[in-house]
Order: sequence, then C-alpha cells, then structure tokens
Amino acid sequence: MQNHGQSKIYQIYLRLILYLKKDQWKQTRLISCQANQKLILITMQDIISVSTGPGCSSFGFGAMEELGPFRVNSDGKTLYQNDYAWNNVANVIFLESPAGVGFSYSNRSSDYTTGDKQTAKDSYTFLINWLNRFPQYKTRDFFITGESYAGHYVPQLASLILSENKKTNETVINIKGIAIGNAWIDDTTDTKGIYDYYWTHALNSDETNAGINKYCDYISGNFSDTCEEYQSQGDDECGEIDIYNIYAPLCDVDAQKPGSPGSVKDFDPCSDDYVSSYLNRAEVQEALHARNTSWSHCSGVGWTWTDSPTTILPTINQLIADGITVWIYSGDIDGRVPVTSSRYSVNKLKIPVVVPWRPWYYNKEVGGYVIGYRGSMVLTTIRGAGHTVPSYQPERALVMISSFLQGELPPSLM
Amino acid sequence: MQNHGQSKIYQIYLRLILYLKKDQWKQTRLISCQANQKLILITMQDIISVSTGPGCSSFGFGAMEELGPFRVNSDGKTLYQNDYAWNNVANVIFLESPAGVGFSYSNRSSDYTTGDKQTAKDSYTFLINWLNRFPQYKTRDFFITGESYAGHYVPQLASLILSENKKTNETVINIKGIAIGNAWIDDTTDTKGIYDYYWTHALNSDETNAGINKYCDYISGNFSDTCEEYQSQGDDECGEIDIYNIYAPLCDVDAQKPGSPGSVKDFDPCSDDYVSSYLNRAEVQEALHARNTSWSHCSGVGWTWTDSPTTILPTINQLIADGITVWIYSGDIDGRVPVTSSRYSVNKLKIPVVVPWRPWYYNKEVGGYVIGYRGSMVLTTIRGAGHTVPSYQPERALVMISSFLQGELPPSLM
Repeated sequence: MQNHGQSKIYQIYLRLILYLKKDQWKQTRLISCQANQKLILITMQDIISVSTGPGCSSFGFGAMEELGPFRVNSDGKTLYQNDYAWNNVANVIFLESPAGVGFSYSNRSSDYTTGDKQTAKDSYTFLINWLNRFPQYKTRDFFITGESYAGHYVPQLASLILSENKKTNETVINIKGIAIGNAWIDDTTDTKGIYDYYWTHALNSDETNAGINKYCDYISGNFSDTCEEYQSQGDDECGEIDIYNIYAPLCDVDAQKPGSPGSVKDFDPCSDDYVSSYLNRAEVQEALHARNTSWSHCSGVGWTWTDSPTTILPTINQLIADGITVWIYSGDIDGRVPVTSSRYSVNKLKIPVVVPWRPWYYNKEVGGYVIGYRGSMVLTTIRGAGHTVPSYQPERALVMISSFLQGELPPSLM
Repeated sequence: MQNHGQSKIYQIYLRLILYLKKDQWKQTRLISCQANQKLILITMQDIISVSTGPGCSSFGFGAMEELGPFRVNSDGKTLYQNDYAWNNVANVIFLESPAGVGFSYSNRSSDYTTGDKQTAKDSYTFLINWLNRFPQYKTRDFFITGESYAGHYVPQLASLILSENKKTNETVINIKGIAIGNAWIDDTTDTKGIYDYYWTHALNSDETNAGINKYCDYISGNFSDTCEEYQSQGDDECGEIDIYNIYAPLCDVDAQKPGSPGSVKDFDPCSDDYVSSYLNRAEVQEALHARNTSWSHCSGVGWTWTDSPTTILPTINQLIADGITVWIYSGDIDGRVPVTSSRYSVNKLKIPVVVPWRPWYYNKEVGGYVIGYRGSMVLTTIRGAGHTVPSYQPERALVMISSFLQGELPPSLM
C-alpha cells in the first residue's frame, strides 16, 4: 500500500481488517473494513434485480463508491479522499455478505447456495465474534444500514439480534436502529412503485401503463402472463439509461480519462470499472488480507437463493414494536427501487403520522423530504440521489445519516 | 464590444440588429438578434407563473442562457461560446415580445397593457417588416419555437400568419412548423399535471395529493377555494428548490467565483445574475443599439394582461389540420410546466398515434422519448432537462431541434 497516495491514512483503516477462523463460523470468511469514530454501524448492501435477486459487494459498492473514506481514481490504481464519508460520524464496518459475495468465500461450495435466513445467521455470528475481539464496542449503541436488497438483510439481522438478546437475557448487541435505503421490502408495492415511477417520469408510454394497470393485480400479488408482458414492455421502453439513476450519464469507456483525479462531488459513471481494477490488483488484495481472487462487484450466489419472503413489512412492524428506530430513506431519481415503491410500502404499514411530510434543508436548499411516524419510524428522501445515495449526494447523505444517528429528523430550517 | 473576448465573432451577429421605425408598428420597438445559417426560425419566450402570467425576455433567456451563440461568464462582462447553439442549424431571431419585455419598449405607456392578441399582431407586423427588409428570406421555410407561455404566443402567431396568408392569397410567410417546449397550452390539464408531478416526484405529501384529487375538478376547470388551498399547500411543500429544474442547485451568491469561465455543459444556476449584469453594461446596450435602460429578465407587462384563452388546444388542432408541423417538447425535470402536463394536454387532443412511444438516442444513450401522431404532430421529451431545455441539455436540445427542422423524428438507434 506504500505506493497508493494516501497509504498512511489508509493503513489506519486497514489495520483492523479481520481474519475470522474457519471454524468460528461455518468455514465462511467475511471481510470487514473498520474505521475509527463514535458509533458502530454496519452497512450491508446488495443490488436487487427484479429477475435475479441479491448478491453484490458491500465493500466494492458501499466502501469504495459510496460512503467509505476513499474512492478510486480513473487510473484504477490510486485513491482520493471522500470528505463526506460516514466514518465522520460513526465507526463503519462493511460486511461482505453472504459468503461468496465480494472477497468473502467458503471452502464448501454448498455454502454458495444460501438465502435470507443463512445470511442473517452468518452476519450475526460475525458480529458476535467481532465484538468478542473488540469488547470495547460492546456497550456502544449499534445501528445497521444497508440499501437495495439489504431491505431484507437489515431488518432480518436486527430481528435476529433482538431474539438472541432475549434468549441470553442480556443485551449482547446493543441495537438501537436501522436505516435502509432504496430498499426492497415488499414485492407487490415495490413492483407497483417501479412501473408507476416509469410512467410518471416519462420513461413509459400511456399504453404500457394502461396495460399494467389493467392486467397487474398488485393488491393480490397475482401477476398474469399478460401483466408480465406489459411489465417487460415497460422495462424495454426505458431504453439505454442507468436505471439506478435515471438522469445520470452512462459510462462511456471511450471518453474515460485514465489519468484524471476523481471528485466526490461529481460521481464518475465508470466508477465500477475503476473499483474493479483496484480491487483486482495483487498488492491491494494482499494489503486487504484477502485471498488472491478474481474480484467482481456481484457474484452468482443470488442465482441459487433459497429463501426470500415476499414481504419484510411484518418484520419491520415488529422492530418498531420492539422500540427499534426504523428509517427508510430514498434517493429520488432511482428507478430500480424508486421513491414511489418506498412510499407505497410504508403506507401499507398504516402507522399514524406524527410529523407531517415536509422538506428538510442542507446548505439553504432542500436536501430531501421527510415524514415521521409513530414509534420512531421515518421515511426520508434525498433529493437528486440515485440508488446508491451517497455516490450522488454525499453531503446530503451525510446529513441524513447524522440525523438518524442523533435520533433527530433532518433539519427543517434553511 | 472590443473588450469582450469574442467581440469579432459577436459583431457578425450584431450587424443585423434591426431598427424598426416607430410608425412601422404602433410606436413599439422589438429588439432582434439574428445569426447566419440555413433556415429562419424565431424563438419567443416567456415564463409562466401560475399567479402572474407572461412577460419575460427571449433575448435574456433564450439567446443568452439557452440556445444562443454565447453565454455570459460569471464576471458578468465576458462571453463564452455555446458549441450547441441552434444557429448551427438555422438562422435564429430572438424576438423581445410584447412591448415592455426586455429591451423592447413603447413610448405609449398604454401599450404595456397588452395580451395574447396584441402580442400576435405585433409579432406579425415585426415579421412582415423584417422580411421586407431582408427579402432573400421570404422564400425560406419558416419555423417558430418558444417555451413556457410561448405555448400561447407561438400557436397564435402561426395561426395569424396562416390567416393573413389566406387573405392576401399568397404565401407571405412560408410557415412550415412550430416547436413549443414545456409549454403552457391548457389551464386545466397543465395544472393537473403540475400537482401530479409534485406528488410522483416526492415533492408533495400523500395528504396534499389526496386533497387535490378530492377537491380540484380538473375536467370542469372549476376550482373551489378548498382546492386552491390544497394547491397552495402543494406549492409550499416543495420548499426551497428551483421549480424550473427540481434537481438543480440553487444560485448561491456566496459561492460564486466571479472570475471563473463558464461551461455550456454545466449550467451555472447564477446565470440570471451574470446576464443581467452583462445586459446592463452601458457599452453592451450601446453595441446592441438598445436604448439606455435598466434591463431585467421579466417585466411588469404580465400583470396587466388583457386576454389569455384557457386553452390553446383548438388553435393547435387547427394548425395540424392546416398542415403545420407541431412539436411539443418537454424537459422532464421541470416542475413549472412538467412533462405530465404536456402529456395530459396532448392526450386531450385525441389524435391517433402513428409512431408509438419509444426512446430516442444521442451519444449511445437515451436523449429522451418520442411519440408521433397523425398530421406531423410530435411529443418528445429531453431527458434530464429543466424548463429552459437547452440550458441543461444543450447537445440533446440541438439533436431535437435539428430533427424537427429536418422533418424527422429524433434518431431511434444507439
């Protein structure tokens, strides 16, 4: 790491990279990267695709392209600092989950056939081991965040922590809240939200919208073949755009300038390529104590997923009943799990509003909108952010997560 | 103008600045700026505000911040070139209309009490005088474009041209088509489109949306006091954003760098200030042959507007019947006259679809979407553009207007 510009700073983060012994948790290794600040917060990440399911790297996306302390320059070799990294306000662990995702692996190929329950169990085991290794964090307030399919992971892990805490009759992990972003939490409302979003954002024709409204019964969840044909037509009509940020430019490989330094305020649509190059460098993998591997953002584990509930809303409801703070945040220009989906899903919970919908402010302009529900549940948007919220709006995302950690709504004043 | 960087090039454009004698058209002067290319095209521009009405400058907005050959640097004194100016594909006249707008003025204050009909008449008189002075353009195909409240001006002027052509039994002005952008064309559908857009773009609460849907009868056009209260609440809920581009940053005067050169690919939200400074410079006003005046983007003439039909759709229908090409284009992140409004208004015309809705392409990605109707009517969007389309998407806007002028839909291939 000596050659990588900010190597000195980076080593501070790397020195806490962990090895977990094989037998400590089912021959499965997860890689974690941890930074030094006030609170413990774990991010879990995944990309949902309607047809494929989960399987992407929290380290590759979350740490290296979103909320981590560094991002990769276009040379794929050097880093630049992210002034709006979430470790400004919390210790952050990036968990590669489940086994087979990113740098995590298992020696048993059968472990790559996995699902929601196994992911929660493995993550819990990791956390227990980690807290045993760093007992000074045991008393801290603990929060979990994640985006996309982590709309499943995060509530499920929180739920497992609570039930394990009850079993032991003591607070093993002091969980206080979860924050899930552009999160897939209910198959029917989220799917309805996608196609409503496509139409209202002028990505789809009136005809396709009418067909979807006529043939897709999002209340029953019964989708006829005709419904799916119309949905497929809706997907096609969007054309060549980045559905994770419908207004962003696409990565144009021919237009890449390999030597140019990146800017955290101007997210580079080719960042996936840079991160992939970086994390596949032998010396980087060595410095990360990862095994020598052909790293990629998303793995095939999503293809053999064994269990995935159609809705996670009952789990969320129970968390709220158990006193856990639940924030559902949404970058409002994401078309994959759009803000309409999150609103429909939250509405399905039918929880009374305590603080009516209002804009929130950062730097004298609207950073997003927020609505507060009974039981510390919050829905908040981040204006002008895509699916990976801190990639596109790093400052606003930091304000949002700071408010979450402080137990306050984002600021109402200009 | 010798001190202004590109003065030599700019003088080419300025040499055709016209003087119109007072008695040539009712003691009213309009300022025009004309460039040298293939076709004649006139832009008319205005900003609609729901409560106030029309009255803004085509020269200040259209020429200096959108589609003209130059834009103003942040010093308010120097210019930079717009590589995507529409005069790449057409001669462009920017018409300050009606009297009292921008540099145009009248010696009779009563002329400042004006309306749609007077604006059309004055513009027609200007055109006749202009063609008499430059008869070489008389045989050219002629197009009119405009945005916002020009959704009124442009169809009305086109309609007047056709009726005057009929009277004289010869083609006095060879009008072929009109293109109107984010255009206010029907009070009821456009208003409904605004509030639907606010809600679907997560700018408004469910409660406000429900109230609007319950109390606002957009079919009859009868708005009760309760409806207007909910609409007002909807406006308030948006908070401090630029409603003309809901994702754009606001102008932060403290963050302005007076010396920095502008970039046509990165629209500066403080451009209004720079243009205002520039056009108020004594030597600029002198070079423009404008009278010495305190120039501002928008004038008070909108406050005393005498006539404005509730819908312009019958006029558009008649233009189509008369063989005029009608393009309605829309920057899809404008909240003032949003794409929903344009879609609802076009649908109200009930014209059969000839080319179904599809994406169109520029530079291997979606530039927008397009749908073709019988009789050369087209609705097209420009992806990621605000109200002033070429300000935010200069390349896509140029592709769009080139297609319009060539009588072709924007390209379907990547």
